[in-house]
Amino acid sequence: MMKYGFSERVKYMKSSAVRDILKIINQGNIISFAGGLPEESLFPVEAVDKAFHKAVTTNNKALQYGETEGVAELRALLAERMKQKGLNRSAENILVTSGSQQAIDLFSRVMFNKGDIILTENPTYLAAIQVFDSYETNVVAVDSDDDGMILADLEEKIVSLKPKCIYVVPTYSNPTGKVWSLERRQKLLELANKYHVVIFEDDPYGELQFDEKEAPPSIASLDDNDLVLYTSTFSKTVVPAMRIGWIVGPHQIIRIMAQAKQATDLHTNSISQHALVHLLNDFDIDQHIQTIRETYYERMLVMKKLLDSVEIDGLKYIVPKGGMFFWVKLPEAINTTDLLNEAVKEGVAFVPGAPFYVSDPEQNTLRLNFTNSEPTLIEEGMKRFVKVLEATNINV
Amino acid sequence: MMKYGFSERVKYMKSSAVRDILKIINQGNIISFAGGLPEESLFPVEAVDKAFHKAVTTNNKALQYGETEGVAELRALLAERMKQKGLNRSAENILVTSGSQQAIDLFSRVMFNKGDIILTENPTYLAAIQVFDSYETNVVAVDSDDDGMILADLEEKIVSLKPKCIYVVPTYSNPTGKVWSLERRQKLLELANKYHVVIFEDDPYGELQFDEKEAPPSIASLDDNDLVLYTSTFSKTVVPAMRIGWIVGPHQIIRIMAQAKQATDLHTNSISQHALVHLLNDFDIDQHIQTIRETYYERMLVMKKLLDSVEIDGLKYIVPKGGMFFWVKLPEAINTTDLLNEAVKEGVAFVPGAPFYVSDPEQNTLRLNFTNSEPTLIEEGMKRFVKVLEATNINV
Repeated sequence: MMKYGFSERVKYMKSSAVRDILKIINQGNIISFAGGLPEESLFPVEAVDKAFHKAVTTNNKALQYGETEGVAELRALLAERMKQKGLNRSAENILVTSGSQQAIDLFSRVMFNKGDIILTENPTYLAAIQVFDSYETNVVAVDSDDDGMILADLEEKIVSLKPKCIYVVPTYSNPTGKVWSLERRQKLLELANKYHVVIFEDDPYGELQFDEKEAPPSIASLDDNDLVLYTSTFSKTVVPAMRIGWIVGPHQIIRIMAQAKQATDLHTNSISQHALVHLLNDFDIDQHIQTIRETYYERMLVMKKLLDSVEIDGLKYIVPKGGMFFWVKLPEAINTTDLLNEAVKEGVAFVPGAPFYVSDPEQNTLRLNFTNSEPTLIEEGMKRFVKVLEATNINV
Repeated sequence: MMKYGFSERVKYMKSSAVRDILKIINQGNIISFAGGLPEESLFPVEAVDKAFHKAVTTNNKALQYGETEGVAELRALLAERMKQKGLNRSAENILVTSGSQQAIDLFSRVMFNKGDIILTENPTYLAAIQVFDSYETNVVAVDSDDDGMILADLEEKIVSLKPKCIYVVPTYSNPTGKVWSLERRQKLLELANKYHVVIFEDDPYGELQFDEKEAPPSIASLDDNDLVLYTSTFSKTVVPAMRIGWIVGPHQIIRIMAQAKQATDLHTNSISQHALVHLLNDFDIDQHIQTIRETYYERMLVMKKLLDSVEIDGLKYIVPKGGMFFWVKLPEAINTTDLLNEAVKEGVAFVPGAPFYVSDPEQNTLRLNFTNSEPTLIEEGMKRFVKVLEATNINV
């Protein structure tokens, strides 16, 4: 019964399938590879504590209402950090957001009309699809392989569908853990230039690479024509609870997004912003990120070893070069939603792959997170997983 | 030049006239009564510092991703505080938001379609109009007097326009400083029930009353039929930089708003939420609010004394019983936008009243904030203001 007259857009809003699964899983005594959480024991608590102490006690002005665009010192530091990564933009081109999720939402708000076409990979980041759906857009999948989108399919869809935007998570993607090759990045940009389509590059995991040499440049850093918006976050490198992300892009778009943000929440929590300023100044965040990388790499290898032990023809996965996830394909006869039910009975959980698809979901896929469990737990959980998997495979 | 194809709704987005004025004013050495800022020297820095220290160091789980609805302990404490104020709802009916501005935005997102009618007072809270405009709604003004909306006009407009919502700031309103009488609150609710219209009660200033006896009950606390949504904030009673507000309402609406929030920013900064839990448990916030009230009352009286010294027939103002603002009407010949130019030359600033109107702006109105300047500065600033005002009055 709809007692209240909700807006049309409510029909297009979906709760996150993953969040719904997590609620169930978190109730039991289950080893969970389902979430996308960073490792809590690595949180730099002492440094964060000092940074907040400084933010709260240094100047009462820091506790007052602040500017919608973000704390000036933080924007300057972000511009500096971006420059070190080859993305040369001024602080004027940066908007601080309440997590990078808000960057996706504000961008959508100022760009999309009902029915606009957005091209994405398939599968792609679930909560981006949720946002796009809520603006009543049409999200269309482009074929891709291990190196990124297939360029012929991309160009054909640009020409025939005239998309407003191409949304990509090109580096250690969620859910596939994939990395786009340099060539695909360049070619994507060439096509975007040729047809004047905006690219939205979502990069929450870019700093979590396992091998320094392998880190590809961001697509934004290759862009000379103001066609790429780039967003990232401190959720994976400091702590998620701060909810601080940022977006870098053409000033014209950033300015309008700031205007939208003003109506949305006035400005992002500025105690956290000032704390980040102190953290970036007083703490060796790059050394800290190196520790995160090493820890996650070790955990990835433990999970890989157990995955390699599975005796099932047709099981495929991509070896992650960074990020937080394994993406696993099973024989087509295995439905991973059914498999999850069995797995939970055995005390282990993952996320079925289907919800991450824009269209044509593959029911035989799943995502495993390796960052939020200690190696011994990964080993134990994966043994349970392999047991369930092999038992299921015999039965199908 | 529109290089990028923005969404239609961008046309309906306006930057805040007040924020634009503030940017200019903050550049000079001006005594400003223009903003709506709390007094910085009253910020409970020591208590906030302790609260953040506890929030960051007690449990790493508090630094992890959190629930969209808000930190459970905070929602329970809010339900308890609301109950003490006669608003008896469970934690399930509460959504923690990134400031009460976000509550207005999320509510609008799930309720309004293009062209929907919203009834408001005239003038009313500027940033609410901004949000409503961005959803392409039609905001229609209801006539009002010092006690609230005029009921005959309200009923006529409900019947003829079939509004989706009535938006009110009934207690120490921004910009008018007005308080609705108990009778008008009850009658508003009766009409809302009769015609089944949702009321959105925006109450950021309700705790800033100058006389304990005069505090009227919130409209939400009189509601037995799940028709009122009530939002408030800690921006005026703790610090604005935390950006923590909350909204209490029918579970059906709160649940859908939480779903919208999930796509918007996942969840509100949970370090600040946990800090607030500690603050509410360890610190006497009610005693602190009492200090704020006394300080603001004293400042209000200083400003009133100077306003009373003005020798201009036709100058009218409402004596604030709480909140942060004087709303002043001048003789019709005086345009307060022109007056502001003269005032700034003399080193004092206010906000012209026109931007706060939904329709038929009265150019001879202005808003004065008395909370963000010390008494001696109020005295000096008001002397400058009176000088400019009297000089202008002779010339018109």
